Amino acid sequence: MNITTEQLFDDARTHNAWLDRPVPDELLHRLYDLMKWGPTSANCCPARILFVKTPEAKARLVPCMSEGNQAKTAAAPVTAIIGMDMHFYEKLPQLFPHNPEARSWFEGKPEVIHSTAFRNSSLQGGYFIMAARALGLDCGPMSGFDAPRVDAEFWLGTAVKTNFICNLGYGDPSQLFPRSPRLAFEQACRIV
Amino acid sequence: MNITTEQLFDDARTHNAWLDRPVPDELLHRLYDLMKWGPTSANCCPARILFVKTPEAKARLVPCMSEGNQAKTAAAPVTAIIGMDMHFYEKLPQLFPHNPEARSWFEGKPEVIHSTAFRNSSLQGGYFIMAARALGLDCGPMSGFDAPRVDAEFWLGTAVKTNFICNLGYGDPSQLFPRSPRLAFEQACRIV
Repeated sequence: MNITTEQLFDDARTHNAWLDRPVPDELLHRLYDLMKWGPTSANCCPARILFVKTPEAKARLVPCMSEGNQAKTAAAPVTAIIGMDMHFYEKLPQLFPHNPEARSWFEGKPEVIHSTAFRNSSLQGGYFIMAARALGLDCGPMSGFDAPRVDAEFWLGTAVKTNFICNLGYGDPSQLFPRSPRLAFEQACRIV
Repeated sequence: MNITTEQLFDDARTHNAWLDRPVPDELLHRLYDLMKWGPTSANCCPARILFVKTPEAKARLVPCMSEGNQAKTAAAPVTAIIGMDMHFYEKLPQLFPHNPEARSWFEGKPEVIHSTAFRNSSLQGGYFIMAARALGLDCGPMSGFDAPRVDAEFWLGTAVKTNFICNLGYGDPSQLFPRSPRLAFEQACRIV
C-alpha cells in the first residue's frame, strides 16, 4: 500500500481532540497485521494490546487516567492499552522454533525478562504508532495513568503489565497545539 | 516521499549479511530528520545515537558484541548504538518550552527517569528502524552485547546508557533465513 514519509513523520502530530468518526474493528485487525512484522529480539513479540472501544470498557479506563488525560481518552473512538506479557518466553517454541533452547534464556531470570519485555514491547509501540498512521489513523500516546489500577482492571489473572496507552481515531487538526521543537542532529547524534 | 507499507512491515526483514555498498553520511542525517518527529512523552526525546562507521571505531565496538553478533557487526557499513540520555530532562526547557515545570517531574527521581528514558528511547528505536527502511536501508537490530563495556567505550563522561545496537546497510537477500511466525491477532489482541 502506498503511503508517504510525511504521513508517518514530518506532518504527523499527537492528537488530543477527536472527530466524530468511528474506527471499524477491521482497521484494528489491519493495524496489528502491519505492526506484528516489526523486529523484536529472538522474535519474542511481548506486546499485548487491548483495544478499548465500548462505552462500558471506556468507563472502567477513564478513571485510571491522570486528570489531564481523562477527557481526551473518553472522547477517542478507540483507546489502545499496550501491555507487555511477562510470560512472553512461553510462546518462544511457537515464535522461535529453530532454537528449542530459547525459552531457557529467560525463564527464572526476572531482570532479563523485565528489560526484554519493556524494551521490545516499547519498540512494538513504535511500530504500532507508525502502522496506525500508515492506515490514516491519528495517535495520542500517553504515559500519565495509574498503572497498577489499569493492570488490576484490565489484565487481572494474566502476566501482562501495562506499558503505555494510546488514543486512536481521526484527530481534529483545528485543535492542535503548535509543534514542539526537536533536538538538532548534533545534539542527538554523532558519526564516529 | 512515497514509500509503501510492504517496505516498512510485510516485506522488511532483519538482515545479517551485507552487500558491499556504502551508506553516505547524508543518509544518516536524513534518517535522524525523519525519526526525530516520532512522539515521546513530554517530547523528552531521550535517544542518542552513535553511528559507528570508521574502521577504528568498529574495531572498538566488535569485541563488545556477543560472539554471534561480531562478524555481522564487523561487516555492516554502519552500526548504530542507540543510547538513552539519563539527563534527558535537562533539555526540557528547549523541548517542552510551554511548561517550565517539566524538568521537576524527573529531576531527583531515578525510577521515573529510568522508565521514561528506557520506554521512550525504545519507542524512538522503533521510529529509527521504520525511518531507515523508509530510506531504503536494511536493519539488523541486536541486544546481545556487553552493555557496561559499550558504555565505557563509547559514552564515557556522559549520562548516556546503551539501549540496543542496530546494523545498517543494504542487506544481502540471498542470505536471509526463513521468516519466523508471528502471533495471531487473537493471541496478542482483544477488542473490549
